[in-house]
Amino acid sequence: MDACICQSLNGLSYGLYIVTSSDGERKNGLIVNTAFQVSADPAKLAVCVCKNSFTHGIIEKSRVLNVMPLEQQTPLVFIGNFGFRTGRNYDKFANIPYTIGKNGCPVVKEHTLSCLEVRVEQTVDVGTHTLFIGSVTAAQFFKEALPLTYEYYHTVIKGKTPVGATHL
Amino acid sequence: MDACICQSLNGLSYGLYIVTSSDGERKNGLIVNTAFQVSADPAKLAVCVCKNSFTHGIIEKSRVLNVMPLEQQTPLVFIGNFGFRTGRNYDKFANIPYTIGKNGCPVVKEHTLSCLEVRVEQTVDVGTHTLFIGSVTAAQFFKEALPLTYEYYHTVIKGKTPVGATHL
Repeated sequence: MDACICQSLNGLSYGLYIVTSSDGERKNGLIVNTAFQVSADPAKLAVCVCKNSFTHGIIEKSRVLNVMPLEQQTPLVFIGNFGFRTGRNYDKFANIPYTIGKNGCPVVKEHTLSCLEVRVEQTVDVGTHTLFIGSVTAAQFFKEALPLTYEYYHTVIKGKTPVGATHL
Repeated sequence: MDACICQSLNGLSYGLYIVTSSDGERKNGLIVNTAFQVSADPAKLAVCVCKNSFTHGIIEKSRVLNVMPLEQQTPLVFIGNFGFRTGRNYDKFANIPYTIGKNGCPVVKEHTLSCLEVRVEQTVDVGTHTLFIGSVTAAQFFKEALPLTYEYYHTVIKGKTPVGATHL
């Protein structure tokens, strides 16, 4: 990519989120940096997921997902459990406490601020990723805390995006 | 909206951006909080614009737009010029220096970090807003500085979202 475009893209701000899904047989989760509210009433979210990820296929089948904003003080090892490996040959929930949301998707309360349950209504193929867009059907609020931003992750936690990681 | 959903949505992180467009006859700009990269290569952005805004109609016609991340130290009055009023009966560029990008849209260098020029390739109706999705065709980088986030705008600048404002 053109170096100037690359440098200019750094001015965009993101949070960091756990996104989970389950189709009844499989469940998985990953870390994404692109989850946004795109419509006011009813509240709709757009969530951008890499096509190569295991979770992508599960969301395509189940048409439901959960979005959990991470707290600023999330340990890197916790992020790594969801973000630095694939769930194809590893159970990401083996050592993480979780419950099941109304939509059947895993809910992780540890190190997250809330859980937004989304029913996918539109999918948009945007190249390397798919935008899943849908209404918020339920929510659980866990705590008031600063959310983890991508900028904080890079500059303070010194986290890097591993090759093959599923977020942009 | 359900109070718990509303509270849970506060965990999502956003930047703040000037978005401009021109169809040759009209030019305008507004403030949005939802501009994000949705595909890696080629780089594509998704920009969420309220259907009621004057700029929305211009983008629909021109199919081009510019995205400029605001710097953290942007004065509230500068944000207000683009965000707190409509361009239907006010020239937002009357007192703001600007140039014209390769795509014909206004480029505002004052208080912004960069300018990303976007050619709109997909539009997605998401209810109150439209998602404009397209490739980054050119960019200008202006300066290294902290970007203004929605969270900083609310907690430090104490900015409010006026009734009828065009961002979420």
